Amino acid sequence: MSRDVAVIGIGLSRWGELWESSLRDIFVEAAQSAIDDAGVDKIDSMYIGNMTAGIFTGQEHLAALMADYLGVTPIPAARVESACASGGLAVKMGYMDVALGLSDVVLVGGVEKMTDVGTDEATYALATAADQDYEVYHGITFPGLYAMMARSHMLKYGTTREQLAEVAVKNHYHGSMNPLAQYPQKITLEQVMNSVMIADPLRILDCSPITDGAAAIILCPLDLAKKISKKPPVRIKGFGHATASIALHNRSDLTSLPATAKAAQLAYKMAETSPEKIDLCEVHDCFTIAEICVIEELGFAARGKGGDATASGATRLGGKIPVNVSGGLKSKGHPVGATGVAQIVEIVTQLRGEGGARQVENARTGLSQNMGGSGGSTLVHILEVV
Amino acid sequence: MSRDVAVIGIGLSRWGELWESSLRDIFVEAAQSAIDDAGVDKIDSMYIGNMTAGIFTGQEHLAALMADYLGVTPIPAARVESACASGGLAVKMGYMDVALGLSDVVLVGGVEKMTDVGTDEATYALATAADQDYEVYHGITFPGLYAMMARSHMLKYGTTREQLAEVAVKNHYHGSMNPLAQYPQKITLEQVMNSVMIADPLRILDCSPITDGAAAIILCPLDLAKKISKKPPVRIKGFGHATASIALHNRSDLTSLPATAKAAQLAYKMAETSPEKIDLCEVHDCFTIAEICVIEELGFAARGKGGDATASGATRLGGKIPVNVSGGLKSKGHPVGATGVAQIVEIVTQLRGEGGARQVENARTGLSQNMGGSGGSTLVHILEVV
Repeated sequence: MSRDVAVIGIGLSRWGELWESSLRDIFVEAAQSAIDDAGVDKIDSMYIGNMTAGIFTGQEHLAALMADYLGVTPIPAARVESACASGGLAVKMGYMDVALGLSDVVLVGGVEKMTDVGTDEATYALATAADQDYEVYHGITFPGLYAMMARSHMLKYGTTREQLAEVAVKNHYHGSMNPLAQYPQKITLEQVMNSVMIADPLRILDCSPITDGAAAIILCPLDLAKKISKKPPVRIKGFGHATASIALHNRSDLTSLPATAKAAQLAYKMAETSPEKIDLCEVHDCFTIAEICVIEELGFAARGKGGDATASGATRLGGKIPVNVSGGLKSKGHPVGATGVAQIVEIVTQLRGEGGARQVENARTGLSQNMGGSGGSTLVHILEVV
Repeated sequence: MSRDVAVIGIGLSRWGELWESSLRDIFVEAAQSAIDDAGVDKIDSMYIGNMTAGIFTGQEHLAALMADYLGVTPIPAARVESACASGGLAVKMGYMDVALGLSDVVLVGGVEKMTDVGTDEATYALATAADQDYEVYHGITFPGLYAMMARSHMLKYGTTREQLAEVAVKNHYHGSMNPLAQYPQKITLEQVMNSVMIADPLRILDCSPITDGAAAIILCPLDLAKKISKKPPVRIKGFGHATASIALHNRSDLTSLPATAKAAQLAYKMAETSPEKIDLCEVHDCFTIAEICVIEELGFAARGKGGDATASGATRLGGKIPVNVSGGLKSKGHPVGATGVAQIVEIVTQLRGEGGARQVENARTGLSQNMGGSGGSTLVHILEVV
């Protein structure tokens, strides 16, 4: 009934502390790059993932603003938000639009401008992804929430402080091969273990950074992609979208991420595939513990064994299932609204064979997992090169 | 190819200054009311229109929060934003979801909690719908933007100060018959003309109020609606969605609303109808001048004659095309993210024949027009009772 959907263009802005560029500059940089990559001369509609430009820059109404600045009004444009999963949500909306036949060529972008405010303001802005009334008001912020998840995982499964650090070491190693990474420096286990304490047991090198950046992709029907795309089209084979309590105290088990488990189940079913058939994945490593919990929920490690799997090298480039070969949120950067779209950009790069030094060999199928808050919402996408 | 979509449930929370209720309380009140009205025992996915809870209440990530508080996790839930057109945008997203066959029963809601902050903060929060860098930073807020549109209309077409006031008088007359209106008081032309000046020529009684409130509707495939609905299903026959520059200085003519014109054209085409076949409409009268400009763009008044049409009584209950029989934003209230959904609630109420004292006779087809900012984005929906 519905149309198959493919990605035919990808683009990223520079990522980092872009004090000389505005929110709209960054978005247009990524969007134009994706349009150029796709080789299309018009787009029919647009979706933008953004978490909280209202707080960061005093600007809501991004969809019309960006459509205007990109020069594509009066096309329909929508901003969607699901905290740090806003980008993944935008991809789902773009998929729906093309699959339904409303639009042929859809631009899906994500953007966040986070470094024009002080650290306390950024921490406040990000905390709006948690439960304001029952969590944030009482003083907790995200490092504290993920620290509780880490402590629970250590207590319940014997996960070690070193295993948390291994996630960071791996992702910075991957990021060292990504020219666009915000922090492409390789780091050692000792550096992570001795870095500044943020929320015990999480140290500064367990945490993803604050980033200005944007990402964009171009979607179209697979049939059209086969006709017009100069590069191998990448089909979106399946997706899953699910929610859970955004307040951590409402979860029966702090080591599980029920929205990720549900979204993965839906995505595997829709794509008619399973974890062992996935060649690489990009997951939401906002903190090192997050990657450990996520790979368990996705079926890439047994329950409680995410730390062991990481330490064993299974999730490293060349391992059984390379995780975050882009560098992940940890090394590549985490402009929150852009992250879910940037994950798709990396998957498509790899499936096209354009990964350069960090290319995963024989990559045919990739998975992205993007989550909001402490896991209250999750989007999973599964892509396959045609 | 796609499925026809119908509205089978509608609900509103109380509207007003609800200092004893939180953002989530208000949303759930409307959502539960719509679920009860539809008589469904489960929903498959959810879309929420909200403009800026991040600034008003420090809470983003509303979709998962509300899904949890409503007790419907792990269903997919998304928040969408297009300033004051966020509600209308949510309706479009829900339509896409059902039409594509992803979900059978979709809850579309809108919510805004605006009165827990001071007036200066509310004015700042609302101004984020305008261009922050080129408009707001330099000091202008929405009454000033719409005042410029009013002055232009007066200069270009001879629209009078009294004609602006007639919009407010009419909408408060309509609102006096709506038990849920925030300001159900009838007002006179003299009261409007002598009310406090806000931004010349607009006075306080030309402006819609600050409101806490929520609205919700239940969508499902038309075929399913015919089977399960105890009330007459109302089909969404067409919609249009378009954008324009959000900065007023980028428009060649301050009296026109190009996004509304384009969205209306698309909606009429999709619904295979035209203005003369519409029995009633709900439009975005955030300021009196807005209604005058909008009814011209929708084809209910000739260009430049929106003021004359209003003064003639054509847009009054009993007139040729009743506009805002709910009371409109002006009298019913304007919780920005909820407004676009509440417009659909009123249209469905009328098409079901449940309008009570304000019922439009023989209403079969209704149109809603919801816009963001000074017109940078617009959603138009056309509905017909089955």
